[in-house]
Amino acid sequence: MNETLVTMVGNVASVVSYAQTTGGVPVANFRLVATERRYDRVKGEWVDGDTHWVTVVAWRWLAANLVSSLSKGDPVVVSGRLRVREWEEGERRRSGVEIDARSVGHDLSRGTSAFRWAVRGKS
Amino acid sequence: MNETLVTMVGNVASVVSYAQTTGGVPVANFRLVATERRYDRVKGEWVDGDTHWVTVVAWRWLAANLVSSLSKGDPVVVSGRLRVREWEEGERRRSGVEIDARSVGHDLSRGTSAFRWAVRGKS
Amino acid sequence: MNETLVTMVGNVASVVSYAQTTGGVPVANFRLVATERRYDRVKGEWVDGDTHWVTVVAWRWLAANLVSSLSKGDPVVVSGRLRVREWEEGERRRSGVEIDARSVGHDLSRGTSAFRWAVRGKS
Amino acid sequence: MNETLVTMVGNVASVVSYAQTTGGVPVANFRLVATERRYDRVKGEWVDGDTHWVTVVAWRWLAANLVSSLSKGDPVVVSGRLRVREWEEGERRRSGVEIDARSVGHDLSRGTSAFRWAVRGKS
Repeated sequence: MNETLVTMVGNVASVVSYAQTTGGVPVANFRLVATERRYDRVKGEWVDGDTHWVTVVAWRWLAANLVSSLSKGDPVVVSGRLRVREWEEGERRRSGVEIDARSVGHDLSRGTSAFRWAVRGKS
Repeated sequence: MNETLVTMVGNVASVVSYAQTTGGVPVANFRLVATERRYDRVKGEWVDGDTHWVTVVAWRWLAANLVSSLSKGDPVVVSGRLRVREWEEGERRRSGVEIDARSVGHDLSRGTSAFRWAVRGKS
Repeated sequence: MNETLVTMVGNVASVVSYAQTTGGVPVANFRLVATERRYDRVKGEWVDGDTHWVTVVAWRWLAANLVSSLSKGDPVVVSGRLRVREWEEGERRRSGVEIDARSVGHDLSRGTSAFRWAVRGKS
Repeated sequence: MNETLVTMVGNVASVVSYAQTTGGVPVANFRLVATERRYDRVKGEWVDGDTHWVTVVAWRWLAANLVSSLSKGDPVVVSGRLRVREWEEGERRRSGVEIDARSVGHDLSRGTSAFRWAVRGKS
């Protein structure tokens, strides 16, 4: 309840890092960059707009499958919960945006993909 | 403006049909079924909830890539514009729901995918 | 999980009907119409696009407050779960789209509103 | 295209500040706080989850109407474009999240509202 769901379309901008929690739960994350496209009425054409960076975090089967499937630069669609985090880094207060992913897929408007079911893909 | 964007996670429930408009624009569509999962507090476990059916429509490069990539049963994430259509069929008034897709991908929470850039994938 | 959340901006297109379930739970519903606006490159101006109709359903406190607050024609923003329903009506098979609302508000891009907390507003 | 639309339900956490650009365009902004609610299976009840802070920015008529309508603490639903911004502050690199609002309304799950059309409410 009161969750903020968001879908971003962009490109993988880092390698996918992978780890396990102390409890043995797989977790993966990568940086995602999304560039808006907007119609420029003066030029009469589509141009690049603002660029947005977020961190995508995934758990369990999704984490494992991301590691096997994604390469830096790949176009993806990411759907999940929006999280705005703040933390201290030395004396600095930092903030950043995460998407806690429920689903990630290669963006088929940019190419094709061959899918393979995980041996057990239901989390 | 006033567009209604929606993201659905579900399974391809038909073959992908493909055609070209009289103007030569590729268009593809398929049926998507999404089953809600909800936590049953009495049973103490996740159970299936309602099932929803929509038609996904795609254009241009996305249409061509869907035909090459999707098989019936594949798990997918679909993001696009929601359209509620009404039409006459003989004496009957029918209505249905479409998603005019801007992005579709295999759902990597269910398996892995190998991506291949289209020769020209920017629509 | 696998819920499909959607936000629509449009106008109230019916009176708000109100009832209670046999268990005494308040439920309200109304018709919502949303008209897309799109930029016409040839005309160089924004024009009306497709029109979409959905039924909005609300429960408990939200239901009660909708009855007190909404009039036909009011501009609103509605956020909730998308449901695609199919049913029989005599020999006819009908389908329609519902939003199971979690939040509804007057759209302040069209006017002003004076808010008043419900005596108990937390559902 | 490639816009990231998001809807947040939360509370106004600041006064609404209002200004005009050098070109005379009204702009308003306020801080929004959203607290997730999640079902605690052990306790068997809904509990507060993470808290997220964002800045909401509005333009033109929406900006003017927000100033007239919103007070600190008011429950609202906000729909708009997600923007992740990074900037320098002295030696520090800061980032934050904005929603460029297309629609804002009082959340009627928490109380009632009386609406009044703006003399000219179409932006």
